[in-house]
Amino acid sequence: MAKQLSVIPLGGVTEIGKNMFVIRYGDDIIIIDSGLMFPEEEMLGIDIVIPDMTYLFENKKRIRGVFLTHGHEDHIGSLSYLLREVDVPVYGTGLTLAIVSSKLEENKVEFKSGLREVMPGDKIKAGAVQVEYIRINHSIPGGAALAVHTPAGIILHSGDFKFDQTPIDGRVADFPRLAELGDKGVLMLICDTTNADSPGYTPSERGVRDTLEQLIKQAEQRVLVTTFASNVHRIQQVIDISHHNGRKVAVAGRSMINIIDKAAELGYIEIPSETIIDLNQIDDYPRDRVTILTTGSQGEPMSALTRIAMQEHKKVDVAPGDLVIISASCIPRNETMVSRTINYLFKRGADVITDEMMEVHVSGHASQEEIKMMINLVRPRYVMPFHGEYRHMAAFTRITTDIGIPKEHVFICEPGDVVSFKDRIGAITGQVTAGDVLVDGLGVGDVSEVVLRDRMHLASDGVVIIVLTVERGTGRILAGPDIVSRGFIYEKESEEILEEAKNRLSQALAEFEKQQVTDWSAVKTRMREIMNRFLKERTRRRPMLMPIVMEV
Amino acid sequence: MAKQLSVIPLGGVTEIGKNMFVIRYGDDIIIIDSGLMFPEEEMLGIDIVIPDMTYLFENKKRIRGVFLTHGHEDHIGSLSYLLREVDVPVYGTGLTLAIVSSKLEENKVEFKSGLREVMPGDKIKAGAVQVEYIRINHSIPGGAALAVHTPAGIILHSGDFKFDQTPIDGRVADFPRLAELGDKGVLMLICDTTNADSPGYTPSERGVRDTLEQLIKQAEQRVLVTTFASNVHRIQQVIDISHHNGRKVAVAGRSMINIIDKAAELGYIEIPSETIIDLNQIDDYPRDRVTILTTGSQGEPMSALTRIAMQEHKKVDVAPGDLVIISASCIPRNETMVSRTINYLFKRGADVITDEMMEVHVSGHASQEEIKMMINLVRPRYVMPFHGEYRHMAAFTRITTDIGIPKEHVFICEPGDVVSFKDRIGAITGQVTAGDVLVDGLGVGDVSEVVLRDRMHLASDGVVIIVLTVERGTGRILAGPDIVSRGFIYEKESEEILEEAKNRLSQALAEFEKQQVTDWSAVKTRMREIMNRFLKERTRRRPMLMPIVMEV
Repeated sequence: MAKQLSVIPLGGVTEIGKNMFVIRYGDDIIIIDSGLMFPEEEMLGIDIVIPDMTYLFENKKRIRGVFLTHGHEDHIGSLSYLLREVDVPVYGTGLTLAIVSSKLEENKVEFKSGLREVMPGDKIKAGAVQVEYIRINHSIPGGAALAVHTPAGIILHSGDFKFDQTPIDGRVADFPRLAELGDKGVLMLICDTTNADSPGYTPSERGVRDTLEQLIKQAEQRVLVTTFASNVHRIQQVIDISHHNGRKVAVAGRSMINIIDKAAELGYIEIPSETIIDLNQIDDYPRDRVTILTTGSQGEPMSALTRIAMQEHKKVDVAPGDLVIISASCIPRNETMVSRTINYLFKRGADVITDEMMEVHVSGHASQEEIKMMINLVRPRYVMPFHGEYRHMAAFTRITTDIGIPKEHVFICEPGDVVSFKDRIGAITGQVTAGDVLVDGLGVGDVSEVVLRDRMHLASDGVVIIVLTVERGTGRILAGPDIVSRGFIYEKESEEILEEAKNRLSQALAEFEKQQVTDWSAVKTRMREIMNRFLKERTRRRPMLMPIVMEV
Repeated sequence: MAKQLSVIPLGGVTEIGKNMFVIRYGDDIIIIDSGLMFPEEEMLGIDIVIPDMTYLFENKKRIRGVFLTHGHEDHIGSLSYLLREVDVPVYGTGLTLAIVSSKLEENKVEFKSGLREVMPGDKIKAGAVQVEYIRINHSIPGGAALAVHTPAGIILHSGDFKFDQTPIDGRVADFPRLAELGDKGVLMLICDTTNADSPGYTPSERGVRDTLEQLIKQAEQRVLVTTFASNVHRIQQVIDISHHNGRKVAVAGRSMINIIDKAAELGYIEIPSETIIDLNQIDDYPRDRVTILTTGSQGEPMSALTRIAMQEHKKVDVAPGDLVIISASCIPRNETMVSRTINYLFKRGADVITDEMMEVHVSGHASQEEIKMMINLVRPRYVMPFHGEYRHMAAFTRITTDIGIPKEHVFICEPGDVVSFKDRIGAITGQVTAGDVLVDGLGVGDVSEVVLRDRMHLASDGVVIIVLTVERGTGRILAGPDIVSRGFIYEKESEEILEEAKNRLSQALAEFEKQQVTDWSAVKTRMREIMNRFLKERTRRRPMLMPIVMEV
């Protein structure tokens, strides 16, 4: 009997982040990517969000390997959590594994199966399936699409991709191989939809060169350029342009220093000799002879650029006449932070150029024409959009319908949906456990809805605690009620409100005492009612109320 | 001796929001606008932010009136707080006062001096100065620039303005009067800089007509259009286009219903007969014969559009094939909410058009060429940018420098700066109290930095309370330590952590007990230390710790 082929997204569908796909053929499971997502606004105090991996933990023995498409956090950021439970080989290209390796070290993850470097073109056997790495372009070197060859058909995962016809490293996507796979017949294409609502083509990485060159050439003072630390080709261009214009380059921000070191070691970046100087040396050169590459493109409060803007950086200042180039896009939810950093830079007298003003950034994701090209090369029977929210998936469906893929052949999935194929006919046949697992400090999944709701409540109006010590049996009040608050009102100036509240409580308690009530949950409920009403009336606020009764 | 003329911004400079200017000539003070600002992200639980009005409260007797430029919240939203303390006449055009009037009623503000309607062209005497209303265009009808005539010179406040050469109501800005004032000599122009970094001209409100017409004409099902409730001319256009295309119009959302009623009553809007239907009637018409005007352009969680998207609206649903037009810009900090609403609409199968995709919205603020036109008409000696952050003020300064205004004649002020004029020479000569006053419920200014910091702390890791009852004098522990937490971990699943914490505390307390320690602040400090270390080690979290000791 033929074994069943299934594709199960555990993340990365109907959302941008925590990418993770499971492909199962019979008893062989492979995992594509293991990413994280940054928390939504209302997930107070949460550090990161990772996919629910219950399905994988229940099928540990069937997993043949993790295959990484590239080294971005939303594709590798939950790997530590996976590998702690599942010891299987991890495959990826050079830079991807270099980044993963330091992550695992940082998180003290020990696993035996090891990281296994692959090259584009390599095919790796994993049980009854084979995984093939195919070169595509993205905003980090070493990105790949993955062709999963199974006896039941080929599943092609596009990776995060764009088609750059003039990439900085000269390595264009492997169009011939994609076409060849198309000839063989691709059962399903899992396709990046990040820019599915952008018409036309995403410009080549080389497209930013002219703008950056012009800006850096004309700059009269210091130039600061910020970009994503992993955008190695952007960094290469800034170094080259600075070098050609007689500027030394210094790097600020640990993550960027790390990536540049690794990329240089692996040959992804070429640094002209004597171009890079130490951050301690920048004041040895005139301001118009220095470019500073810095982290902080998202306005992160502790990043180098933000500290520079706030005049809190020990080694770098910014002064009137300096030019700051934000060579990055603003990721959703970071708008406020970015705009605050920019304002501080303007306040210092610097000029700031963003991607909204000039072409100082290009996306790493395919626009509509590239998506069409991918589909026409590969000619898949089915498609599944990933790396997108509903809006992107809707736009993707319009594109594929235009190309002639029937609407019923587009699988718009929720995490956990199981798409199974029988005789090359695909259908959603079930669901496995899936969803968000919230990580807060060392706790993985221990912050429940209730805890988040409490944090929201505490955040908006603070907490008011009412404590009382009573005599066991008699209900006689021995001490209290005392009221303590935090995050509610400024106590020093609002003593009388709390004093009045205390009086009201005392009256009610005296009544209970007289009747020798010892049902403390009833007493607590009553205290809550009294306080709620009083505080609402006096302040229109609704702090969290916590009555505590101690029996002695 | 000549009296001194001063201009004091109390808000609206280095920020977009809480606009409020004070102009003082000798002992006569007039106020231009009294706005609010929405809280920044880290101002947890805060409802609104208003300007610090200390200076005005200290100079009550000198205030001759409040002159409103237009009816937007950032220009009128703190009026209730001002009028509760200062009973002076409030001037404005018809729609502005209609909006103010319902606000004051809602807030139960009683004041005697009254609202006084003015028309463009009117001059109002206010002590030794005269305030003249001059028509300009903005995204709400009745907007005005104000010329403040004083013996020491004319101060011109641009209002929030654009120059619309083809406005919907046919009423272009009063260019001749602006030119005439220029001839007389304007000492200082206080100028809107919202779009100072946008080159060219802001398109006419009429510019959106073609796009809206095309979209509504081609729509095959229900059309929903959301815009700012006060954008009366946009609403007019949607009504007209729907009418011409055989669609009835229903309105969802209280604020929009209110404004349409007022605008119709005052003649700012003309509704073709039998066009408007009640929201209860929409199901009596085929889906392709109905347009729904709705609030919710900013994705506000309780707004009509968001409730419709979430399938929580009682009267309106959205179905595949429906078209939703977001005929508004996304205000900074609302990006996440807007994008969430849009995603839900796509999930329902609707198509959504935003101002990023097509020209379905135009700004109400002047772009660079209009700012230049304003300056060349008025030819001010000095300029002061308002309604902008540093980035806009920097862009404005570039524009005015290009036009030939010396850089020293551009006053980039912080709130509270006093710009005084002597013999037509201006300088920043001092500061008055100014800043943000945070409003939370009924409390105005009672949420201090400390309270906000506590709320941040509570929001990120919750609160852990440790209570203890001890015998007075001996220090003997009678009850506890008990531990209660909220927003920290899910207690049901984490009992053992709190149990272990309790054991550690008990050990330390036994030690204190043995030594008969009764210095409770030392005991509390020690409990805090123990808990901090333990919780950090076990959870990497840092909840707010509140040790409470009750003496009996």
